[in-house]
Amino acid sequence: LTSIVLIHPRNPLNIGAVARAMSNFGFFDLRLVAPYDLAYREAKSAVKSHYVLENSRVFATTAEAIGDASLVVGTASLGHRDLHLPLERLETGALRIRQHAGKVALIFGSEKFGLSNEDLSHCHALIRIPTRDEHESMNLAQAVAICCYELIRDDAALPTALPTRTQVEAADLQRFEAGLLQALELSGYVQERGRETTSRKLRSVFRRLPLTTRELVVFSGMVRQILWKLKSK
Amino acid sequence: LTSIVLIHPRNPLNIGAVARAMSNFGFFDLRLVAPYDLAYREAKSAVKSHYVLENSRVFATTAEAIGDASLVVGTASLGHRDLHLPLERLETGALRIRQHAGKVALIFGSEKFGLSNEDLSHCHALIRIPTRDEHESMNLAQAVAICCYELIRDDAALPTALPTRTQVEAADLQRFEAGLLQALELSGYVQERGRETTSRKLRSVFRRLPLTTRELVVFSGMVRQILWKLKSK
Repeated sequence: LTSIVLIHPRNPLNIGAVARAMSNFGFFDLRLVAPYDLAYREAKSAVKSHYVLENSRVFATTAEAIGDASLVVGTASLGHRDLHLPLERLETGALRIRQHAGKVALIFGSEKFGLSNEDLSHCHALIRIPTRDEHESMNLAQAVAICCYELIRDDAALPTALPTRTQVEAADLQRFEAGLLQALELSGYVQERGRETTSRKLRSVFRRLPLTTRELVVFSGMVRQILWKLKSK
Repeated sequence: LTSIVLIHPRNPLNIGAVARAMSNFGFFDLRLVAPYDLAYREAKSAVKSHYVLENSRVFATTAEAIGDASLVVGTASLGHRDLHLPLERLETGALRIRQHAGKVALIFGSEKFGLSNEDLSHCHALIRIPTRDEHESMNLAQAVAICCYELIRDDAALPTALPTRTQVEAADLQRFEAGLLQALELSGYVQERGRETTSRKLRSVFRRLPLTTRELVVFSGMVRQILWKLKSK
């Protein structure tokens, strides 16, 4: 029920990337307000153009593009002056959109200028993606992708407790595994042919085990001793 | 404490867009495993290249790139065969990363092939961004942007209750406002000069009021009647 509205988009790559991100997350209603003609045509003729872009609609004004929506949400940044509404974080804005019963339009300004005061005055709520103050400005398609993701995000997907995993550093584990593999080679357990596969299997196993750093030190000592014996024969 | 690792990235635009998204969300440690030379050089020479890209590091192998991490998380899709670990949703994987005390490496495969079995075997956990089954494959930079966003996302930013807003359709409100504006013009309250500003102000006000559809019908009737009277004078 949420449409994505791009105001004056200028970059064909961005328009295509927006359409792809929307499709990734199940949003199919793309609207463009007065897009740069060439950009729109280029985006549509791109090889990977798909359903969302093919079915996008062009409007002359913002007012027309959001006409059927009962909740209009604009994306803005802290740099915007004279906002008539509080600027909310995306987490809050997305909750508002999910809870809304009717049609929603989520509008994005042009890459260069963002939303105009005219565009902003159509909005019932304003949101910002929580980027750093020092580097606020996001790529348009990435901003759309993140908003779509937040809208379908599922807290219920979270488990109550996570299983414990190893806390050791990857390089220590790698040294241990390299030693173990060498021991297996010297002992004849592994042939040249099967070396890669065994190496990978060892790695997978040890990434799953909740080894402590202390335990790894002990195991590494064992392998070193075995290696020394194998080599001194 | 989380580094982003790209394996064999091929597209300079993607590398640049990854760096920008990382900077947006406060991630500064970008590592590339055997990037296509030309792509890396082009990305670095792009006008907008900045801090994150300038300070990125290149490694010959995945093993070296993740050497200092005690938690390695790989991004995969449902299409992957023979995964040695359960494929978790991003919401869960991000929680795991946030709760981890040591260094984390979050690895992304190449645009074309994703992570190899070799890369996957280095991982302690595997995550997928919850895209639609029918269109799973995401743009690389958008995938990185969404992962970075989820890592800094703040549930505590959510208010306990949202204020109520109007539930009426934008087009109905627009018709009402157009009528009101015309009445203000005919009455001499608004001159041609101030027309745009008043129009914008009216819009802002009515977007904030929790008007019901019923109330809007009543107000619209009032305005129509006033207009009729003003015109018939």
